[in-house]
Amino acid sequence: MDIKKYLNGQKEAVDSFLRSYFREQIRPPVLQEAMLYSLFAGGKRIRPILALAAFEACGGTAPEILAYASTLELIHTYSLIHDDLPAMDNDDLRRGKPTNHKVYGEAVAILAGDALLTEAFCILSDPSWSPSLPVSHLLRASREIALASGARGMVAGQVQDMLSEKAEPDEGTLEFIHRNKTAALILASVRLGPILRGSGDKEFSAMSRFGQKIGLAFQVIDDILDVEGETEELGKPRGSDEDRKKMTYPRLYGVVKSREIANQLISDALSSLDIFPAEADPLREIAQYLLNRRS
Amino acid sequence: MDIKKYLNGQKEAVDSFLRSYFREQIRPPVLQEAMLYSLFAGGKRIRPILALAAFEACGGTAPEILAYASTLELIHTYSLIHDDLPAMDNDDLRRGKPTNHKVYGEAVAILAGDALLTEAFCILSDPSWSPSLPVSHLLRASREIALASGARGMVAGQVQDMLSEKAEPDEGTLEFIHRNKTAALILASVRLGPILRGSGDKEFSAMSRFGQKIGLAFQVIDDILDVEGETEELGKPRGSDEDRKKMTYPRLYGVVKSREIANQLISDALSSLDIFPAEADPLREIAQYLLNRRS
Repeated sequence: MDIKKYLNGQKEAVDSFLRSYFREQIRPPVLQEAMLYSLFAGGKRIRPILALAAFEACGGTAPEILAYASTLELIHTYSLIHDDLPAMDNDDLRRGKPTNHKVYGEAVAILAGDALLTEAFCILSDPSWSPSLPVSHLLRASREIALASGARGMVAGQVQDMLSEKAEPDEGTLEFIHRNKTAALILASVRLGPILRGSGDKEFSAMSRFGQKIGLAFQVIDDILDVEGETEELGKPRGSDEDRKKMTYPRLYGVVKSREIANQLISDALSSLDIFPAEADPLREIAQYLLNRRS
Repeated sequence: MDIKKYLNGQKEAVDSFLRSYFREQIRPPVLQEAMLYSLFAGGKRIRPILALAAFEACGGTAPEILAYASTLELIHTYSLIHDDLPAMDNDDLRRGKPTNHKVYGEAVAILAGDALLTEAFCILSDPSWSPSLPVSHLLRASREIALASGARGMVAGQVQDMLSEKAEPDEGTLEFIHRNKTAALILASVRLGPILRGSGDKEFSAMSRFGQKIGLAFQVIDDILDVEGETEELGKPRGSDEDRKKMTYPRLYGVVKSREIANQLISDALSSLDIFPAEADPLREIAQYLLNRRS
């Protein structure tokens, strides 16, 4: 299969849903502008695409859950806006463009983030996007995403990440940060497949193992790219983690060993998909693609 | 009935739920501390109590929806933490205590707010708090709260509020701010009653009218108290709205006319409860209490 084509097609579907969803005007206009500025700043839509591919792996058809999968991008975008704030990572650039607060000011940036997060739950609690889905599946999906995003997931990882700047890296803390800050939402993304499909425990467990492995791999590769990548491809200055003394895999293990860890994680991820049929091929290809990405 | 006793009893129930819910430790500890610092900073739990009283008015028993009603306080608290930030209202005091960012710093305050908002949806998407409630009612409640809190509710009101500082007050803008910033979540609170109870359209409409009226009245009274109240009772400096040139009812209409508007709103609110039986008496008393409050 042509994975590039698959990714482009799914990205276009997610973009098209988000564009159409936000056609209805929000007041005041600056709030809508700030939300859409970051939402359409060039994200690859990896999390929604993982959810769609996982749903296909479980025997569903992707368009059925397009709206719900797209909420993952709202949450991811909110987290980027808040992470970039002066009080947090104080980043001026994101994907090669000025960060949200640089364009709209801190107050609007904070509120645009709040609004994107909340909007995700507006969509997740609206059964009309896919009336044939049992309401109980939808509620479980909403809970999965809320747990992954909050004080027992992404937010916990971000707090620990900040607390650990300039600290000596240690394995336990590093894993806590990565598991929560990045891997938790990626795990929730792939779990959305079996949850919305109503798959059995065996599929759910296998998909969870897959999600844990690629979630961690995703962040390890991000860390490596921050050391090795070109500023132009990354859309942010290379080495920004090191400048900030962030706790990262390359800092703890070096680049070579970090690359080995990423390879092993992807290999484990692929093994956990063994129980799934050919419908899981896009998911398999995505795992491989994540390993080889350059930005 | 003794409304003070009723309010105290319901407040104690909400506090007790929240205390027990957060007994499970969140890591890193500073995140949990920051969340609980503001959550237990002396809030009167008006929004959860309105939801409980509205549920009783529709024939339910309050403890059945205690967990779901309590989420309104998580959302209210998150909004206060973010509103107080230096980039927004830059308030040092809230209910007589240093604001969250004064104690924990801006970054943790932003993230504690994010976590409280997200935690609300963790609870709202967990049917195990009341297994006898139909899952579809729960999903509808979650949607009601999400809509009221986000870009078509509270967040929109806060953005407009900031944009309107120092602007000449006009009726349309003032109503937009109040309807969204404060009234939307209060409306959602009372609507939670008929939604979770599965009441008919007639009850839902009547409760919605009640919620719209007391929601607006609540903010008008807040504005009046900011002009007339004592710093000690308010827990923040009197006249802070005026110092900041906030768009308020007293600024547009004067205090006397604002008081008349509040009276009329509460009177209209009470009329809309006419179709409800004696079980709505606590709700009626609360409306009266809101009008006469001093802080």
